Amino acid sequence: MNRIEQHHLIPTTKYEIILDSVRRFLRRGAINPISKIVNKMHPADIARLISEVEKKDRFIIFELIQDVKIKASTIIEIEEKAMMEMLNEMPFDEVVAILHEIPSDKAADIIGKMPEDKAKELLNMMKTEDSKEVKGLLKYEEETAGGIMIPQFFALSENTTVQQAIKALQKAKEVEMVFYIYVTDDKGRLVGVISLRQLLLVPPRKLLKDIMVKEVISVATDMDQEEVARKVARYNILAIPVVDKENKLVGIITVDDIIDVIKDEATEDIYKMAGLNIDEHALDPTFSSIRRRLPWLYINLLTAILAASVVGLFTNTIQTVAILAAYMPIVAGMGGNAATQTLTVIIRGIALGELTLSNTMKALLKESVVGLTNGIATGVAMALIAYLWNGNYMLGIAVGLAMIINMFVAGLTGTLIPVILRAFKIDPAVASSVLVTTFTDVTGFFSFLGIATLLIRHIAV
Amino acid sequence: MNRIEQHHLIPTTKYEIILDSVRRFLRRGAINPISKIVNKMHPADIARLISEVEKKDRFIIFELIQDVKIKASTIIEIEEKAMMEMLNEMPFDEVVAILHEIPSDKAADIIGKMPEDKAKELLNMMKTEDSKEVKGLLKYEEETAGGIMIPQFFALSENTTVQQAIKALQKAKEVEMVFYIYVTDDKGRLVGVISLRQLLLVPPRKLLKDIMVKEVISVATDMDQEEVARKVARYNILAIPVVDKENKLVGIITVDDIIDVIKDEATEDIYKMAGLNIDEHALDPTFSSIRRRLPWLYINLLTAILAASVVGLFTNTIQTVAILAAYMPIVAGMGGNAATQTLTVIIRGIALGELTLSNTMKALLKESVVGLTNGIATGVAMALIAYLWNGNYMLGIAVGLAMIINMFVAGLTGTLIPVILRAFKIDPAVASSVLVTTFTDVTGFFSFLGIATLLIRHIAV
Repeated sequence: MNRIEQHHLIPTTKYEIILDSVRRFLRRGAINPISKIVNKMHPADIARLISEVEKKDRFIIFELIQDVKIKASTIIEIEEKAMMEMLNEMPFDEVVAILHEIPSDKAADIIGKMPEDKAKELLNMMKTEDSKEVKGLLKYEEETAGGIMIPQFFALSENTTVQQAIKALQKAKEVEMVFYIYVTDDKGRLVGVISLRQLLLVPPRKLLKDIMVKEVISVATDMDQEEVARKVARYNILAIPVVDKENKLVGIITVDDIIDVIKDEATEDIYKMAGLNIDEHALDPTFSSIRRRLPWLYINLLTAILAASVVGLFTNTIQTVAILAAYMPIVAGMGGNAATQTLTVIIRGIALGELTLSNTMKALLKESVVGLTNGIATGVAMALIAYLWNGNYMLGIAVGLAMIINMFVAGLTGTLIPVILRAFKIDPAVASSVLVTTFTDVTGFFSFLGIATLLIRHIAV
Repeated sequence: MNRIEQHHLIPTTKYEIILDSVRRFLRRGAINPISKIVNKMHPADIARLISEVEKKDRFIIFELIQDVKIKASTIIEIEEKAMMEMLNEMPFDEVVAILHEIPSDKAADIIGKMPEDKAKELLNMMKTEDSKEVKGLLKYEEETAGGIMIPQFFALSENTTVQQAIKALQKAKEVEMVFYIYVTDDKGRLVGVISLRQLLLVPPRKLLKDIMVKEVISVATDMDQEEVARKVARYNILAIPVVDKENKLVGIITVDDIIDVIKDEATEDIYKMAGLNIDEHALDPTFSSIRRRLPWLYINLLTAILAASVVGLFTNTIQTVAILAAYMPIVAGMGGNAATQTLTVIIRGIALGELTLSNTMKALLKESVVGLTNGIATGVAMALIAYLWNGNYMLGIAVGLAMIINMFVAGLTGTLIPVILRAFKIDPAVASSVLVTTFTDVTGFFSFLGIATLLIRHIAV
């Protein structure tokens, strides 16, 4: 990542130069040159520009876009929160015009996020055809195949000829991205698939049912979007058909939406482990970040107090040998580091589908051995350092032994806790890290101060 | 993630049933039924099966695949380490047969990972045409556009007619996935692009140069793969052309390879923050995990000792009031938690391209305010708890004040350190967390024990 980021530091890229100029023109109130710039840009770039200028300037730029299609493509590329803010400030007829131009899965997302009465009114104002599609999509949960699919797809009956298929394809203007032609039987059930290119390679008289691939990879409407993404990635396909319970084709999911899912889910895992809300971005308003992060910090404060109360049991020991207070956080901290390594591997293994019931025991055994071995490796080093530092080999033994115990516990709980949480259908990425760290803190303090108390006559000199 | 994982817990899915049966047949040495199962499976599923059976059984399954094309598609879907192990055990002519069947970017990856003499011999044994392509690709660095592109693409001269283009398309068998037809001038420079479907919609006599889109989104051979992925995701395209310094078309990158990049880079960020090696998987051999994680643990041990030495400065204070030792890790730990939240947001912001030079100051200001405010919110709570717990309000003031200071420092260093590292072209995901934690540990211990020392007459009762 290091190499590619450089260009963000100095505004030498084309985009940064544009951003700079637009900002300068905005300050001067020079609208004409901005209009010229904006109307030459790709919607994705205009969206980026809009997210990076000041809030009050967003609409100035947006309203300069002349083509309503570009307007629509731009707004859906803007980050969700800003997009909804803008849509909520727009006049109703402009929102409706935009909703007509965007894919219906996106329209359903937007309407699903609006206040109920506003959503109703917008649906009433939309063309019947479009609003029907959107209403159909609103039935499905947001993070499922049904929630991310587009209900427009290109499907033909199995008795169509290749020639007819090509004609139909030339006529179909509504469907934006055709990669595959799905083939259905007389009841609308998905029975086959043909790629666009294959169609060019076979005699025009052939029937689709004779040339189609019959083993179609499809997903059910209620499949979680993360599993859909996994399937698309595994089979290297560009679009996956979505079927209902009777195997009737109801929509397709294209690879560009899959990319968004994969990006979001990866961020989700990193974020959850740090106790962050999925929607938080580096440049969000300060107050919303404060409010969102605080609950996690309070939970951590409680667990920290729990761990600290263990230390409270040993005040006599600490009073006798105050230097123990310096070693204590080392033991707890190293346990925490080892636990984070184990946790990350296990949580990622679960997310990537590598960890199954059958191999969990194997992972548990492995992580315990890793924890124990790395505990010995670092514990012995620490014991030596403690001996050299304080000239007290019993102190060295206490700290080394406690580290070995704690890092073994780290491997054990780092594997067990996410697996158990998953079995109880609790998302392991959210709750694991705070639980595991509490374990390693408590174990670290208890084992180290406990051993030190037992050896106190040899340690206190 | 919770919902979709369920099915991994009980073997009720089709795949788990297959895995179970295959294992049973393997134990009985019943090869025929396995062969029947395997030859009906999708290569991606066979690859998964091979990674989940015992090492000794891998080849039994692999050699049952009858079609060499399926064999080739299977082997490249296997996780890298296992794939290389298998390829290194295979006879040379089988490896060559496989190399001929896979995309040349994958072939180049594989050959690049083999011992040099073996790589040379394999290149000699390959068909000249194929080995030329592979040699061409070996020039590029692995994680750049050049390293992940396929040198086969479908390009036509700008003076071709639509009719000629369709004919050419029907003949082109080598090119696996055609979504776009790239248009070049007489010097091979990329000048336009047309989608396959557009081709069906225009009169057959038209020249490509009259119907092509002239603004082609392309990348240079040396662009980092993460930036390529960002570009493909931003513009929602299915394949991106790769050009050399003279704008000559040299290859394309398809969206399925982009998905792999996005998946890998996301894992990379999570892993780096925990000090893990990118290639580590939940079920890797124990010894390799031990060896890979140990360096990070040693680095953390050193920084923990550094922080502990701060505690060593205050042994007199601790000897006087031993309960301080219990509060100390709370102050340090809460700083660590707040820092991790800031760090994660900043590192992700850098990775997603949201943080640029122009808005870094804004992020810094924001994170400082968030740190300070959350420090006050949790610090005041902790001060009250300390007062209630030990009945000593001066102790409460010391711990509360130290927490406020430390969480402010957490927000500050959590933003500054990754940004500074990036400016020095050091990957912020790798080094930030250990540096930031050291800061919050040192600040936590120093501020708390320092304040306690100043107030010692009021705290010691």
